[in-house]
Amino acid sequence: MNISIESMTTTETPTAQLAAWVECLGQRLAQRDVDAALELFAEDCHWRDLVLFSWNLLTLEGKADIRDMLEARLDETQPENWTLEGEATLNDGVLEGWISLETAVARGKGYVRLKNGLCWTLLTSMRELKGFEEPSGRRRPLGVEHGHGHADKRNWLEKRRDEEAALGVTEQPYCLIIGGGQGGLGLGARLKRLGVPTLIIDKAERPGDQWRGRYKSLCLHDPVWYDHLPYLPFPDHWPVFTPKDQIGDWLEMYSKIMELNYWARTECLKASYDEAAGHWNVQVLRDGKPVTLKPTQLILATGMSGVPNVPVYPGAETFAGQQHHSSQHPGGDAWRGKRAVVIGANNSAHDICADLVENGAEVTMVQRSSTHIVRSDSLMDIVFGPLYSEDAVEQGLTTDKADMLFASIPYKVMPEFHRQAFEQIKERDKEFYDRLSAAGFMLDFGDDESGLFLKYVRRGSGYYIDVGASELIANGTIKLKSSPGLSVERIEQDAVVLSDGSRLPADLIVYATGYGSMNGWAAKLISQEVADKVGRCWGLGSGTTKDPGPYEGELRNMWKPTQQQNLWFHGGNLHQSRHYSLYLALQLKARFEGLETSVYRLAPSHHCG
Amino acid sequence: MNISIESMTTTETPTAQLAAWVECLGQRLAQRDVDAALELFAEDCHWRDLVLFSWNLLTLEGKADIRDMLEARLDETQPENWTLEGEATLNDGVLEGWISLETAVARGKGYVRLKNGLCWTLLTSMRELKGFEEPSGRRRPLGVEHGHGHADKRNWLEKRRDEEAALGVTEQPYCLIIGGGQGGLGLGARLKRLGVPTLIIDKAERPGDQWRGRYKSLCLHDPVWYDHLPYLPFPDHWPVFTPKDQIGDWLEMYSKIMELNYWARTECLKASYDEAAGHWNVQVLRDGKPVTLKPTQLILATGMSGVPNVPVYPGAETFAGQQHHSSQHPGGDAWRGKRAVVIGANNSAHDICADLVENGAEVTMVQRSSTHIVRSDSLMDIVFGPLYSEDAVEQGLTTDKADMLFASIPYKVMPEFHRQAFEQIKERDKEFYDRLSAAGFMLDFGDDESGLFLKYVRRGSGYYIDVGASELIANGTIKLKSSPGLSVERIEQDAVVLSDGSRLPADLIVYATGYGSMNGWAAKLISQEVADKVGRCWGLGSGTTKDPGPYEGELRNMWKPTQQQNLWFHGGNLHQSRHYSLYLALQLKARFEGLETSVYRLAPSHHCG
Repeated sequence: MNISIESMTTTETPTAQLAAWVECLGQRLAQRDVDAALELFAEDCHWRDLVLFSWNLLTLEGKADIRDMLEARLDETQPENWTLEGEATLNDGVLEGWISLETAVARGKGYVRLKNGLCWTLLTSMRELKGFEEPSGRRRPLGVEHGHGHADKRNWLEKRRDEEAALGVTEQPYCLIIGGGQGGLGLGARLKRLGVPTLIIDKAERPGDQWRGRYKSLCLHDPVWYDHLPYLPFPDHWPVFTPKDQIGDWLEMYSKIMELNYWARTECLKASYDEAAGHWNVQVLRDGKPVTLKPTQLILATGMSGVPNVPVYPGAETFAGQQHHSSQHPGGDAWRGKRAVVIGANNSAHDICADLVENGAEVTMVQRSSTHIVRSDSLMDIVFGPLYSEDAVEQGLTTDKADMLFASIPYKVMPEFHRQAFEQIKERDKEFYDRLSAAGFMLDFGDDESGLFLKYVRRGSGYYIDVGASELIANGTIKLKSSPGLSVERIEQDAVVLSDGSRLPADLIVYATGYGSMNGWAAKLISQEVADKVGRCWGLGSGTTKDPGPYEGELRNMWKPTQQQNLWFHGGNLHQSRHYSLYLALQLKARFEGLETSVYRLAPSHHCG
Repeated sequence: MNISIESMTTTETPTAQLAAWVECLGQRLAQRDVDAALELFAEDCHWRDLVLFSWNLLTLEGKADIRDMLEARLDETQPENWTLEGEATLNDGVLEGWISLETAVARGKGYVRLKNGLCWTLLTSMRELKGFEEPSGRRRPLGVEHGHGHADKRNWLEKRRDEEAALGVTEQPYCLIIGGGQGGLGLGARLKRLGVPTLIIDKAERPGDQWRGRYKSLCLHDPVWYDHLPYLPFPDHWPVFTPKDQIGDWLEMYSKIMELNYWARTECLKASYDEAAGHWNVQVLRDGKPVTLKPTQLILATGMSGVPNVPVYPGAETFAGQQHHSSQHPGGDAWRGKRAVVIGANNSAHDICADLVENGAEVTMVQRSSTHIVRSDSLMDIVFGPLYSEDAVEQGLTTDKADMLFASIPYKVMPEFHRQAFEQIKERDKEFYDRLSAAGFMLDFGDDESGLFLKYVRRGSGYYIDVGASELIANGTIKLKSSPGLSVERIEQDAVVLSDGSRLPADLIVYATGYGSMNGWAAKLISQEVADKVGRCWGLGSGTTKDPGPYEGELRNMWKPTQQQNLWFHGGNLHQSRHYSLYLALQLKARFEGLETSVYRLAPSHHCG
């Protein structure tokens, strides 16, 4: 059967129409007829592939791009069994649905959207490697050794202890993950289930301290449905916005229950890649004692935020009060009746200002450029709601399906989706924004009005999800100094002097001035040369503020091969850490098993570290 | 509309037929027409009520029993909104399905089975108290305090620490749970979500030590699908049979993540009820220091197994080797080349014998009466499979639904269900049983051939779920001394001498001789008088071996009011601890909130403690 495109505009059900398209694509690819396959795509088409075809994370834009990829990869990939899963839907002229397929080495899932019978967006993603499926469900271990005749008489605890004692000491891990926050733990859990010997190291006393150590009032800014870790979802009484110590405890529990090999109180001093030997030499201090690790793969999961930006202002050394970066801020308890100046106007700045005024301090926020503000309620209702909410759960949308739907919208198309949502939000919260503006606060919705998530993936900064601090600014409880290009002129013994000449008396200065690029970690832990070779991490190359081109269409260097052999970057919010750790884990597992993993279109490096 | 019974034998769908029956019952009860309601029941009918109508756990057998209950309870209960949920099924003449209903104070669910249009079995169970629903799903807390204007500036950690510091010190718990194993923890978690101030105490160093401290090779004998705790299911890679240390770690994590107030290293010395004051006085040693607690409700969750039975044999004091109860047995490592005698032939005896021979000891098992043996595979396939298995999960059967289906079969009817299953097992494993018998092992399937679960609920002993030790007995690796009425005559310095005159040289004697009744704990911790007032715990009163009548039809004193005011017994396997903790928690919550909870047909006491 060979279905012509025309037949899809008949009176068939949406499901039948989409099933026919999917089957047709499968057939044409099986025939290696790239021309015919491309006839199934619209001119404006986007194929996002997560590892399945490319052993890379990339989005192909337009037919020429897709042709290149197919010509390069079709013979090796051998896609087959393209199947529509479940029912298709047809809304506003977009026919869409879930697909499954297989390749020579893997099983995949995806999502497709057609307009007028032709493909507009296609997601293909690897879900598992054939022969290396995770030991879950029907594949779970038995636990007890039936028959009592087995050779290994160690029980679970003894095996676990032996593994912990050996890994990194008498046996080298295949993967070394630097950083034991949610990113390192989620990836570690996936690698554990895949049977890849992995060690996680972290400086802190215990897992979760990355959160516990931050300012007292901190809660996650993303809601619970968005924040699950792999395999072990939060119970259904878990708060919408998890307090920092509670997420800390959860991560600590997770590390133990998932049987991760985790060295706490362990700092990475230096790493270098030995190309001849094919492994890294990593110097670490474990409990103060030097240890050399020789992992094949090195994963930096040190936080997408990178190294704190601490500005150096003239006179800072003369300041008589306390001054520290927001990452060092303990909470406002000690500042009752004191004067605080907070430099910055993003998430941390807002949280810290609110915490300080609540504790009876007199606080001035210094806003140097515009900020995107979105009320938490509105964000949850309009942006998260359809995918991550109690409604979504009740409609049977699993976390994995929500993640896939989210991933199915190519970054190129995403601004259009989000602009619509933020238009609604602007209208819904007009009065709120008007009051903030009237207080002198400089607002924006991103260069192209596409709002929070795009700002996050382009630059990872420039926003505040409002949980109340904006009202304190609007009503003057938090004082505001704000104008375009405003800067700190100098610090005096007891004050901050701004470029507009104003002088802010201060007992405390908090630098809520953000973080450097993630590959600052590569520079610090490996070398500037490697950091430059890898180039910038994060950002799409959209050409908007703080996201310089050229356009890449995926987050630079994240969860995919980099220009430095066997060096990987993992991180992001809990949602990204959860979902993209799957693709990173599959790439690492394939290499561990010695599968052919030739990378299609390895991204060139842009912008030195 | 008033549907006659006759109309239900028409060509309507099973769902329409059952829906009509359910609606009809609801109408007749709403009209307080007990005669008409009883017309909907068959002569052979069983109504099992878990708290919803009776504030008790009981099964009404036959129309007269049901009439009594309805006449006593209908006005107060005010059942309404009887609704069939989902689709009914019709198999072998039994029409069955899920129901929901409400009472004046609660929401309930249930399950009904009809034969020839008339009720054969009916389960009604309380699911939540109106106005006191658990804060889950849409009711979950926000976590962050929006608006920054709130009065309580403590963060999550501070509130949690304050609660832990106050409960039992400056504030008295409403509930005190003695025993922090899976029973105490699951109940504690339910009470926590219901907002009932609860303290759990346990002697051990940390939660989970109840399992960690047992013999090295121990794994749960029930499969993972049967073993989930409330709210936080095991991840899907969890082993089928959890090793003891792994379940220990899970329990420890659970205690922390569910934010339970748990005093480890705390022993209960003595408890007495102060009737005038309406609370208990409980003397405990916390970290060696005496503390008096004054809870309103006292829950013994000390293990259904009660105090270990250690037999006293003549000459035991002269034995030169080691001798200990199975609960004290550490594992076989130290006994290579030594001779061990294990007295007993149930679960622990088998596990310990297998562990010892594997470690190179020479082992004799002494079987004094017949044992019910069932192969783990067969048990999982035939008995557990339909409700607790990967198949059941794939068919969408949630743990809660499986629990309800299990509970929907009245104990009176259960032997018939189970006899059929065990007939299959006898046939399937005929060769296995023949070989065991040939080795001299005395087998049984319970007094009425109803197998494992009935033996468990009647007497809690007398069986082994085979994970391999039976083969070692069949092939002679584990030596066997077995005959009806065989007993230990005396212990000598280096041997056990049996009543048949045989002399078993021994370096180690393990008394796998079981445990006393659960209310041995009441005698020990409260008084013999209270233990006698409460009477026997566990058992149905079936009149079979070790389960003396009169017949009660529910487990004596478990999870329901006892003859001692404000004293409760909680325990059982992980399945029972999970499911019945719901009903116990609702009974405690209702009392905490001062709701009317008059108990229908409080069970009289039978058989002194």
